[in-house]
Amino acid sequence: MAELIDPQVLKGFLDSLPEKEIPKKRMMRILEGVFETYGFVPIDTPALEYTEVLLGKGGGETDKQMFRFQDNGGRDVALRFDLTVPFARFMASNRPELTIPFKRYHMAKVWRGEKPQKGRFREFFQCDFDIVGVDSPSADFEILLVMVRAMQALGAGPFLIHFSHRGVFNRFLAREGVQVRTVEILRSVDKLGKIGREEVRKELETLVAPETAAKVLDFIHPEANFAQTLAKIERLAGGPGEDTERLSILGRLSVDLGLSGYFRLDPAITRGLDYYTGLVYETFLTELPQIGSVCSGGRYNNLAGLYSKEELPGVGASVGLDRLLTALEELGKNRGVKGRTQILILNLDEAQVGGYQALAEELRSRGLRTEVYPEQKKVASQFKYAEAKGIPFAVFFNGHEEGEFSFNLKNVTTGEQFKELAVDEAMAFFKGADDEL
Amino acid sequence: MAELIDPQVLKGFLDSLPEKEIPKKRMMRILEGVFETYGFVPIDTPALEYTEVLLGKGGGETDKQMFRFQDNGGRDVALRFDLTVPFARFMASNRPELTIPFKRYHMAKVWRGEKPQKGRFREFFQCDFDIVGVDSPSADFEILLVMVRAMQALGAGPFLIHFSHRGVFNRFLAREGVQVRTVEILRSVDKLGKIGREEVRKELETLVAPETAAKVLDFIHPEANFAQTLAKIERLAGGPGEDTERLSILGRLSVDLGLSGYFRLDPAITRGLDYYTGLVYETFLTELPQIGSVCSGGRYNNLAGLYSKEELPGVGASVGLDRLLTALEELGKNRGVKGRTQILILNLDEAQVGGYQALAEELRSRGLRTEVYPEQKKVASQFKYAEAKGIPFAVFFNGHEEGEFSFNLKNVTTGEQFKELAVDEAMAFFKGADDEL
Repeated sequence: MAELIDPQVLKGFLDSLPEKEIPKKRMMRILEGVFETYGFVPIDTPALEYTEVLLGKGGGETDKQMFRFQDNGGRDVALRFDLTVPFARFMASNRPELTIPFKRYHMAKVWRGEKPQKGRFREFFQCDFDIVGVDSPSADFEILLVMVRAMQALGAGPFLIHFSHRGVFNRFLAREGVQVRTVEILRSVDKLGKIGREEVRKELETLVAPETAAKVLDFIHPEANFAQTLAKIERLAGGPGEDTERLSILGRLSVDLGLSGYFRLDPAITRGLDYYTGLVYETFLTELPQIGSVCSGGRYNNLAGLYSKEELPGVGASVGLDRLLTALEELGKNRGVKGRTQILILNLDEAQVGGYQALAEELRSRGLRTEVYPEQKKVASQFKYAEAKGIPFAVFFNGHEEGEFSFNLKNVTTGEQFKELAVDEAMAFFKGADDEL
Repeated sequence: MAELIDPQVLKGFLDSLPEKEIPKKRMMRILEGVFETYGFVPIDTPALEYTEVLLGKGGGETDKQMFRFQDNGGRDVALRFDLTVPFARFMASNRPELTIPFKRYHMAKVWRGEKPQKGRFREFFQCDFDIVGVDSPSADFEILLVMVRAMQALGAGPFLIHFSHRGVFNRFLAREGVQVRTVEILRSVDKLGKIGREEVRKELETLVAPETAAKVLDFIHPEANFAQTLAKIERLAGGPGEDTERLSILGRLSVDLGLSGYFRLDPAITRGLDYYTGLVYETFLTELPQIGSVCSGGRYNNLAGLYSKEELPGVGASVGLDRLLTALEELGKNRGVKGRTQILILNLDEAQVGGYQALAEELRSRGLRTEVYPEQKKVASQFKYAEAKGIPFAVFFNGHEEGEFSFNLKNVTTGEQFKELAVDEAMAFFKGADDEL
């Protein structure tokens, strides 16, 4: 006999077992449903691209983390490390065939060879959605609106979307005479939630004068309400501008739609990336703020500038699927995790499989997820299977006479039994239990 | 200005635009729905694995086609080239946590560096489903049953599942004294549909004596009906056996469930692979037989033998998603390809976006996919957008008074207009048009 191969997976990679894959697929379907309701359409791009395309300007942290290699044809290729760069390339490649404004979503795997650590993997899902080709309050607001609806549909409990505008921050910094290392200041401010006010002050004081650092800390501190916060940052930025006007409209729209309770103007939100130019936002779960933002994004003014001369402004968001999944688990809000089958028809005589499957088909046609145990075996083994898979009902098939199936039903959890039921009689039991799945 | 980067994709790779991605996602959801109704659960595995794990025994054509490289940690890794090998590894890695019998499905991308040609790409989707851990007629039949339901749900028109049993073929060959090059014979027979009877005869005569070749051609030729075909192959194989008994049961079950019209016992089905040991089958569309099998599979007796001492028999199938997608297109059976949005609310005054979105939310809450054009623009541009995206209705928002929205509705295709409607009044128009989407 040949030696066995060790069935190990690579460090930083994971198998997804049904216990994880079922709720994940459920989340993805909910998100797709919300996106489609708002007219977003799905796209996909290759997992593998020319390294040159993915590197772009290069120099970022992600570059070093790319899975990069020479393919059999000697091409320098790499696995995508996010969905933003491929989307930019996609817009440039397919521009003539696309309708602008273009509203797309994309859920797919990305790969980064970073040091594996708790909650960080080398392969993970991203879920992005964007409106490209317009720069308007309407588009900004719609992205925020979709996020509210998506979060409500996912059922991860109360949440708050913190938002701000990079333009106001930039004006404020310019007014303070800060011209260099602005990205470092943004990144520092971005850490406020994680490291706290005093640590941010220390970091800022290595970048700017102490009195400027103090002013930055004042700027990013939200006031009692939207109007007061807006008034303060407008003042510190040197007066009204397009940016504060945009924030004001977004605030008003959230009131118009009765959604202001989901939003907080928070000048500490900067997203720490050069990429964003307008609206920026992050989403936190009220019951689990420590896991960080579960959906972040913002407005950018030139998506595909590396590949095309056409300027494509856009606004978008990235949903943290894995974080949300963890959150749902930790909050005990995952439904139907163990399995989805509702009824197991016991196989006590392989010669009766035709009858078993006929009954199963009748139940399936009524929308019930039904399995026939796939071989004749001891009842105890079949019940063990039902328990392991979380199947609530077991059916003992009696027969099929005069156009009616007859069967005994056992509630796997409680042990309760019901004799000689017809399908119509049993529907109430099944429907009742379904709410718990 | 920096030089632009050419936004090209790699040879053999493709972007998936919404026109393709929408029907593809629709197909995947239909398949997932069918799989779940029968108690199959989803899994996922890493795209990247140790090369050693993927190579297995090695020596196959796929080995040379692997995207294989050294990662940053010096590991010899490769992208998966199918979902079968990773599934075998998955079963060995996760055996203690899995409930046997294990019914799983897996839809994911695989990569093969083969020469790109019409309809063949270096990155494509596979969709596999299997029942592992039992060897029974019940399990064999269920895989066939799921395929019938999946094909019905996908709506690609009439189809026929051709099936046979490798055991009968093997017994027949042994009886004819054929002991070597049996896999080549199987591969040759497998080409019958593609190259025809005379070409297969020529190939066979290079492998065996002419009279044996003639007998093989007789064996693989189906008779008038199931019973006669079964009787013939049983006779040529030397009499009844477990294999012909299994075929007989499968035939009877298909009659019991009223599905015999979907099946044909076809001894020419061999699947040409060493891997299969029992049931083998292929599925052909009656209206498009030339695109080949759209779903194939069979029974194997030792899934994870390379990685584990435990013998895991199983039966499964692979759905040809891309072929089916092409077929639906060619047959004109793709619904809702152009876009999914039903209603476009025109944006004629950015200051009214609150009202537009409030009306849109009302329509969305009634299950209508609704967009607000994301910036104020000329009506003509907005109509062009609706036409390009295939949106059937445009809405001119009048206002919101006494708890009622008022709007004018225009059918984008016919030009018909309706003035001062309320949401309730408009529902009939929307619902009527939805059937066409």
